[in-house]
Amino acid sequence: MEFNEENKGFFINDYSEGAHTEILKRLQETNEQAQEGYGEDLHTKQAKEEIKRLLGENHSSEVHLVSGGTQANLTTLGAMLRPFESVIAPESAHIAVHETGAIEATGHKINTIPTEDGKITPADILEVLEEHEDEHMVLPRVIYISNTTEVGTCYTKKELQELRAFADEQGLKIYLDGARIGSALMTKSNDLTLKDLAALTDAFYIGGTKNGALLGEAIVLNSPELQKNFRYAIKQRGGLMAKGRILGIQFTTLFEGDLFFQLAGHGNEMADRLREGIREEGYKFLAETESNQLFPILPERLIEELEKKYVFYRWKKIDNHHTALRLVTSWATKKEKVDAFLEDLKA
Amino acid sequence: MEFNEENKGFFINDYSEGAHTEILKRLQETNEQAQEGYGEDLHTKQAKEEIKRLLGENHSSEVHLVSGGTQANLTTLGAMLRPFESVIAPESAHIAVHETGAIEATGHKINTIPTEDGKITPADILEVLEEHEDEHMVLPRVIYISNTTEVGTCYTKKELQELRAFADEQGLKIYLDGARIGSALMTKSNDLTLKDLAALTDAFYIGGTKNGALLGEAIVLNSPELQKNFRYAIKQRGGLMAKGRILGIQFTTLFEGDLFFQLAGHGNEMADRLREGIREEGYKFLAETESNQLFPILPERLIEELEKKYVFYRWKKIDNHHTALRLVTSWATKKEKVDAFLEDLKA
Amino acid sequence: MEFNEENKGFFINDYSEGAHTEILKRLQETNEQAQEGYGEDLHTKQAKEEIKRLLGENHSSEVHLVSGGTQANLTTLGAMLRPFESVIAPESAHIAVHETGAIEATGHKINTIPTEDGKITPADILEVLEEHEDEHMVLPRVIYISNTTEVGTCYTKKELQELRAFADEQGLKIYLDGARIGSALMTKSNDLTLKDLAALTDAFYIGGTKNGALLGEAIVLNSPELQKNFRYAIKQRGGLMAKGRILGIQFTTLFEGDLFFQLAGHGNEMADRLREGIREEGYKFLAETESNQLFPILPERLIEELEKKYVFYRWKKIDNHHTALRLVTSWATKKEKVDAFLEDLKA
Amino acid sequence: MEFNEENKGFFINDYSEGAHTEILKRLQETNEQAQEGYGEDLHTKQAKEEIKRLLGENHSSEVHLVSGGTQANLTTLGAMLRPFESVIAPESAHIAVHETGAIEATGHKINTIPTEDGKITPADILEVLEEHEDEHMVLPRVIYISNTTEVGTCYTKKELQELRAFADEQGLKIYLDGARIGSALMTKSNDLTLKDLAALTDAFYIGGTKNGALLGEAIVLNSPELQKNFRYAIKQRGGLMAKGRILGIQFTTLFEGDLFFQLAGHGNEMADRLREGIREEGYKFLAETESNQLFPILPERLIEELEKKYVFYRWKKIDNHHTALRLVTSWATKKEKVDAFLEDLKA
Repeated sequence: MEFNEENKGFFINDYSEGAHTEILKRLQETNEQAQEGYGEDLHTKQAKEEIKRLLGENHSSEVHLVSGGTQANLTTLGAMLRPFESVIAPESAHIAVHETGAIEATGHKINTIPTEDGKITPADILEVLEEHEDEHMVLPRVIYISNTTEVGTCYTKKELQELRAFADEQGLKIYLDGARIGSALMTKSNDLTLKDLAALTDAFYIGGTKNGALLGEAIVLNSPELQKNFRYAIKQRGGLMAKGRILGIQFTTLFEGDLFFQLAGHGNEMADRLREGIREEGYKFLAETESNQLFPILPERLIEELEKKYVFYRWKKIDNHHTALRLVTSWATKKEKVDAFLEDLKA
Repeated sequence: MEFNEENKGFFINDYSEGAHTEILKRLQETNEQAQEGYGEDLHTKQAKEEIKRLLGENHSSEVHLVSGGTQANLTTLGAMLRPFESVIAPESAHIAVHETGAIEATGHKINTIPTEDGKITPADILEVLEEHEDEHMVLPRVIYISNTTEVGTCYTKKELQELRAFADEQGLKIYLDGARIGSALMTKSNDLTLKDLAALTDAFYIGGTKNGALLGEAIVLNSPELQKNFRYAIKQRGGLMAKGRILGIQFTTLFEGDLFFQLAGHGNEMADRLREGIREEGYKFLAETESNQLFPILPERLIEELEKKYVFYRWKKIDNHHTALRLVTSWATKKEKVDAFLEDLKA
Repeated sequence: MEFNEENKGFFINDYSEGAHTEILKRLQETNEQAQEGYGEDLHTKQAKEEIKRLLGENHSSEVHLVSGGTQANLTTLGAMLRPFESVIAPESAHIAVHETGAIEATGHKINTIPTEDGKITPADILEVLEEHEDEHMVLPRVIYISNTTEVGTCYTKKELQELRAFADEQGLKIYLDGARIGSALMTKSNDLTLKDLAALTDAFYIGGTKNGALLGEAIVLNSPELQKNFRYAIKQRGGLMAKGRILGIQFTTLFEGDLFFQLAGHGNEMADRLREGIREEGYKFLAETESNQLFPILPERLIEELEKKYVFYRWKKIDNHHTALRLVTSWATKKEKVDAFLEDLKA
Repeated sequence: MEFNEENKGFFINDYSEGAHTEILKRLQETNEQAQEGYGEDLHTKQAKEEIKRLLGENHSSEVHLVSGGTQANLTTLGAMLRPFESVIAPESAHIAVHETGAIEATGHKINTIPTEDGKITPADILEVLEEHEDEHMVLPRVIYISNTTEVGTCYTKKELQELRAFADEQGLKIYLDGARIGSALMTKSNDLTLKDLAALTDAFYIGGTKNGALLGEAIVLNSPELQKNFRYAIKQRGGLMAKGRILGIQFTTLFEGDLFFQLAGHGNEMADRLREGIREEGYKFLAETESNQLFPILPERLIEELEKKYVFYRWKKIDNHHTALRLVTSWATKKEKVDAFLEDLKA
């Protein structure tokens, strides 16, 4: 892919650019302050408070900041499981495919469930449980879901409530990977809030890296048992940054007002605009999504033209003349580029 | 400790402030560029080249950037060892004491050697090897050293050469933790270069976090065997940042000129000034160091006065009336604060 | 299942009884000898020589004895892999399903391939390799196969040769789980020998527990790289028995003559007899096997009758009135019980 | 060392010979029984009941049988700890020295305490706890002790009670390695019972291998939390033997009467006889022990003579002319050999 050319339009991912200018500004303003290390600084403390504020008045959740998603996943899941316990996840799960065996490296098997839409249901999970009948097999303990999923779909409140009820029935825990939770919470039909996530999961994380931060994910621990000594887990896995302030500054800036939601909203708006424009041209989509990822099926000849001016990912070959693309928008996507893309579709 | 008061003097560590302004400036300037993710961006590529330039013309070393020191240590040591192999380290080693068992969490024992000065010699290591006679005990394979050490001392070129010769004789590898390698290379009596480190170790890392960067350590792999597929190791341990550009920007800024060495030089100069001033007042030191850490022994009453205006760490009680402090200087230490501290010593 | 009733016929597995009487006799005869511990005893030495004799004159393989199959698998695979490397295995693989995540507990992912017959081919494996394109995913390194497979099928020499050629091409290693290698080598159409296995795999193990021993599996390491310091791996995983002599005695007895092959031959003969008898009665099989496991599909009403006198496993429901059983024979299966079973089929 | 010569006297260890004849006899008698696999057989069930009987009427302990001591240690300690928690142990602990990093391979650090006599006290442990002040260091959670210790000493009931009280105060767990618990419980001044161990530890194991069994250690879990799903842990670590009956038979034979205690008693008696005879000849001991290990200091010239007829271990050089030996007796030690040894001392 041809990066680094100024005039290109980037629909390749949501982490191509740096950070929102407010974050850089805050870094600049606070740069000379002497602050305590390892996440004990005032910025981190404020960031935690801003996030907890959104979790509900009587929240007892704990918030921790780490630098990336794989680190959030391996640290939290590693701390949730006894050695012989496993994680149940959709086959497309980031932890199952794109983390180089990070969870297995902490000693745990992932039991995967084939899905079309990246989502799993109590019925799917029950099947896994029923196959695991005794101590010759791992003991499934945590349900891993992501929202948005790896293919851009979202969970509804009802779906999460059903998972929670099922998990409680079965003695399972729920972990939600929120690398793109901003986009999920800002889709048009979303009915979930961070407060709901705190109530319905044992742990989840709020992705900063893919929503305007330079780096950083905020792990939210709702289960008191899991909260116990969690900073040890972070330090052991290499996630406790000496200058934790830079994580604190990201999340303070994102959450002291509603910048986090604004940025995700902008990404979704750009995605909607793209989606509608493409649909108007009569093209179909591989899957229906409302978030910042879309999968239009375009003719090969058109794709080749588009590739001269835009950067995106060829997701899946449909037939000899058609391919589904993955287009990703973000806080940094410019409306002009979207419009230019749609214009070029018509050509 | 009382942080966050503007007028205090900070001698508590070398990571209290943000980053050198050149780094923030570069972050700002490059912020809107779309760059590839996961360390494939142009900044990271340049940073690697700048560092390799210093390793010698015919270098074949590989450079990788990660966010922190524990992550550098656990990723590299984890990749150097077969399951039953161990690391030999001084008892004071960061990996042995202050990384929450991160190395053990990758499955490996650390064999520690008691030291006064944080340094180990072939004779020390031979003793460990001789105790490990068969397969009922771990097989020591890697020598871990740090420079500067955890107590501020440094290795000479001759000492490293002796370790290398011994390691080769015994089939051992050498790993050097360079969290404070900047300070080590800028001490007055230092005779080592980065080029020497590339020649004398199998792997080492160059610490950015404690020398003016917002975050980041540059792992240098000199052994071809270890280089193989190392990016897998980084990804698996959660160290491959989506916006790897922020690491690239740190190290490009530090190494395209000699900023890295200037900053370390400033820290050492401030330490020297403190050291001389304290010595002139007739106080002794717990240990002789030339780097940015010093350990003066002061009377309790004076310490209490100093604590009102300065932040530092009480290292070790000497007797009922005296305590050794640890004072740390850095790229951010202001000469006026040093002078004020020395003035207050006299009071 | 109703065990412990003397007159029942046992077709439930091949490890229900104790050991072949020759083994018990040898235990008795050698009991008072003082022998070195931890596998340095003369019996273990002899056992290793007897096995190496069968691996070919110029063999350079190494043999190690451990107590069970899961231990053999986790110790050997754990020693074959760097942290981010994975094992490719059929979905039905014992390590993937029935070892409680033992391989993952050593830090490694298993990439599974769906199969009907428990066997995998170069084409299957190539598909896995092609999906694993970069360092965001694990690096597949070892091919795991079992012979007989978990569903009683066997590899031919040609199939193994093709796997070897493919593995060499791709830089992969081959590990063969031989929990039931005795039965595999004694099937009528088998054209493999232990010598072939030494030539075609990097490592395999010869199962004693399921072929007449009280306990014990003999790991055969063919790759010199893997042989290096392997006793450390065994000790670390808890597999180095203080009274290693009991393992040595098992394998000396099985291999100094051809008892190992006789016992497996008897098991297969009994299976053949069962198979033919069942087929003569007009019943079909879920899968075609030649080894000591067979999967006849019988009517429910007949199964209920048989369960009163025989112990076996209901493998898979076929329809409302038919179920496939798994019948397993062994060195200890009595011909009279086989004949009685066949007689009862007719009733 | 010269093994395998019939007339030698063996004081080298307590696992040189096979098993007590009662065990072999029972193996023989039960050999043809079909039994369930994986520790569900009647012998294992009986063994568990016989052991539980000795733990007190209202015991709620759980018993599991595995093949060896390292396996018992790594399985149990691995199941007792969260990833960042560590084990406190004496420097001489088997797990710290002679298990090839087995505990570290499950991910956990061992914090060692220097001792002369292999025993640790609340004061020793408190020192370790005080050094571990925050999440930059591991979180000590389990106290590991052995009885007899690796140097043949024993704990008193009072010492164990003090450890228990201290552990409860500090939120720590106690694990006791009983590889030689038989000898410990049969020393003259012992005031502990298995019932006491069940009350005073969270888990311990009863060593069979070193007290007359062919193989086998019985893990006793007293903490209900730890009991949960423990068979999964055993299976995952490779400790669940298909023919678990052979473990069941060992412990049924040892515990249905008092054979276990008789055998340990015999070993101790032989040790006492040796000890007294050596003392009568005027020789001193490196350490005072009452168990089946003794450490006499003998002149070099005498040692060389003894080595012609006896097998033992040179433990520690005392000066140019004297060395401390380690003599170990066991259930299999013959009184004639003891007397001959004592006779040869006089020569």
